[in-house]
Amino acid sequence: MKKIAILGFGVVGSGVAEVLTQNKALIEKKLNEEIEIKYILDLRDFPDSPFGDRVIHDFNTILNDSEISIVAEMMGGSHPAYDFSKAALLAGKNVVTSNKEVVAKFGTELLQIANDNNVRYLFEASVGGGIPIIRPIGNDLVSNEITSIDGILNGTTNYILTQMNEHGTSFADALKDAQAKGYAEANPSADVDGVDAARKIVILSSLCFGKCISPENISCKGITEVTTDDFAVAKALGYTIKLIGHAEKIDDKIFACVSPRFVPYANPLSHISDVYNGILIGANMLDKVLFYGKGAGKLPTASAVVADIMDIVEKMDHGNHATISWVDASANDIASISEYVCKRCIITNGRAPMGQYIPDLDKTAIVTESISEEKCNELLASLESDYTVYQIL
Amino acid sequence: MKKIAILGFGVVGSGVAEVLTQNKALIEKKLNEEIEIKYILDLRDFPDSPFGDRVIHDFNTILNDSEISIVAEMMGGSHPAYDFSKAALLAGKNVVTSNKEVVAKFGTELLQIANDNNVRYLFEASVGGGIPIIRPIGNDLVSNEITSIDGILNGTTNYILTQMNEHGTSFADALKDAQAKGYAEANPSADVDGVDAARKIVILSSLCFGKCISPENISCKGITEVTTDDFAVAKALGYTIKLIGHAEKIDDKIFACVSPRFVPYANPLSHISDVYNGILIGANMLDKVLFYGKGAGKLPTASAVVADIMDIVEKMDHGNHATISWVDASANDIASISEYVCKRCIITNGRAPMGQYIPDLDKTAIVTESISEEKCNELLASLESDYTVYQIL
Repeated sequence: MKKIAILGFGVVGSGVAEVLTQNKALIEKKLNEEIEIKYILDLRDFPDSPFGDRVIHDFNTILNDSEISIVAEMMGGSHPAYDFSKAALLAGKNVVTSNKEVVAKFGTELLQIANDNNVRYLFEASVGGGIPIIRPIGNDLVSNEITSIDGILNGTTNYILTQMNEHGTSFADALKDAQAKGYAEANPSADVDGVDAARKIVILSSLCFGKCISPENISCKGITEVTTDDFAVAKALGYTIKLIGHAEKIDDKIFACVSPRFVPYANPLSHISDVYNGILIGANMLDKVLFYGKGAGKLPTASAVVADIMDIVEKMDHGNHATISWVDASANDIASISEYVCKRCIITNGRAPMGQYIPDLDKTAIVTESISEEKCNELLASLESDYTVYQIL
Repeated sequence: MKKIAILGFGVVGSGVAEVLTQNKALIEKKLNEEIEIKYILDLRDFPDSPFGDRVIHDFNTILNDSEISIVAEMMGGSHPAYDFSKAALLAGKNVVTSNKEVVAKFGTELLQIANDNNVRYLFEASVGGGIPIIRPIGNDLVSNEITSIDGILNGTTNYILTQMNEHGTSFADALKDAQAKGYAEANPSADVDGVDAARKIVILSSLCFGKCISPENISCKGITEVTTDDFAVAKALGYTIKLIGHAEKIDDKIFACVSPRFVPYANPLSHISDVYNGILIGANMLDKVLFYGKGAGKLPTASAVVADIMDIVEKMDHGNHATISWVDASANDIASISEYVCKRCIITNGRAPMGQYIPDLDKTAIVTESISEEKCNELLASLESDYTVYQIL
């Protein structure tokens, strides 16, 4: 019997209790061991929940209980989630989390503390919800050098962009629709400004390249300026527009960014619609692999948390295993956007001296070869009209 | 230092040597240990290969060498691949393989022998080439009850169907094209008759449901009868046609089949083109996840074999881990096709009293609700014209 504590009994936290209950038999069969939720830490009480009797309000009860070997942190936000996770790891307890903010900001430190204390800090649910991605990168792609990551990492923005693409809805209306459906929050900034996607690409990039760039230090552009005209241009040229978290190695440096991009229909990411997420990994032996599924939602995300718990239980009694670790990237480790070379699409109003004129829109689309931002700026300086630029995937 | 032997120095076998050489540094860094290829067993000699000095012709040299802890079998075919694998496991050596024929036919026995001898039998490369699928099912989806598997499991047939769909090529011409490109063999039966896909769905089904159905005992239909007219009907109705390996639980029984199916554009499998493979797993908590990538090819497949080797090396010194096992399915465990309920599309020549008439083709397409084969046969009996029936995914 392994006893665990859940921190935060919100959507994901209650989902973890639900997965552990509903799939109890198969989990115990697989582990040959029971998992019991001993405590649930929350500010609130849940008198009507079947787990109501386990709700406590003082984290120290968990910290001081030597029976608790695993703490599942699903509180969200940096504090006190980070502080509780750190304290638990220092106390020799394993920690699993779905909290991408904490992993992206404090992952380096927490992983180091976990390794120092011979416990594990796992975060499968922090990227891609229920989609297996963290563990496959660590276990399955190990014989490959990973060369690039491109992900649709945020379901809310993907829903909005899908509405714009399929129904010609404006950004403002699509956002309202997403809010009405509960996909977007009242303050949608973390989603539509790309902050959430930035945290996730930082986690993936750290895992693949071993160095963690602070989310504030990556080039990050959201989708608030994407127009229906941009979609019409994209469509005319055989593209759609997706918010892409991208990371790659440029020489020995790491480049990571989030931006709305033109994605050709031949790229499997172009077909990922609505709230679904997809992560396309480039690797030197296996070329490209895509992982696709529900990037959010109570039970998918909770099932990833439970998979982490099971991983810990399974290996707990078999000595210390190769664990995840990365270091903080220094300024020298990070490639700036000026070093990044890619194809671009420049959209100008009216006719331009080059490119493809689209009469219906009275716009010209110029698709460039792979060029740097500097080279692109030279090109833009030669144009006499207003323009919008999209990177092409 | 761990010493391994490669059985069969063909495409995948030589790829394994290439992956181990080219990614030597990262593999050793990850494992903190070297992997050395001590022997390569093949009927031929390879005087020009950098590995030529390791080529031997007598399997007993490997079997009797206590330094060899891992045998990588990439011979293809049932014999002597099965016999050598069995002997190696009985001698306490771990075995990894890309050989789907052996895993599908003899997996139950070989896994049992591996477990009895406290070694492992791993076969990530047997399904989906370089796509991680076997280990994710065992490690990542563990907190879920798997409810269904749908896979594009054979790249050759997917290439042929893509040509037919995109260019209106006939089956015969698309097959010739695939042969000219080296995707299909001179005798293409194992691919186009669905035999290869049947072996792979059997492996996935065994892994997910714990009981192995012999590949000969599953309903298996290839793509030789698919016509360009069928594609035209599918397109008119919003579908494409894919060769799908399918497995699900029907009550407590397992149903598995291979057949060309109508796949709606909303299903991500519909967008998987050319020689790519994709496997869509349905699970009770995370709904659907898709794994996509190159389903064949020297280096992708070899990189999966090497990932298995690394998995073994990493855990070898940490005691025995939960290993894979399944039992052979008895007749009572297997659902027959008559118990299988799905939507179907009936295509008739000329006009029919129901369905959608397609004037260009002078055909009628009748899309049914989810019905059994029996119910479908009743419907067919009421038709006066010739017909073709497709299951709909």
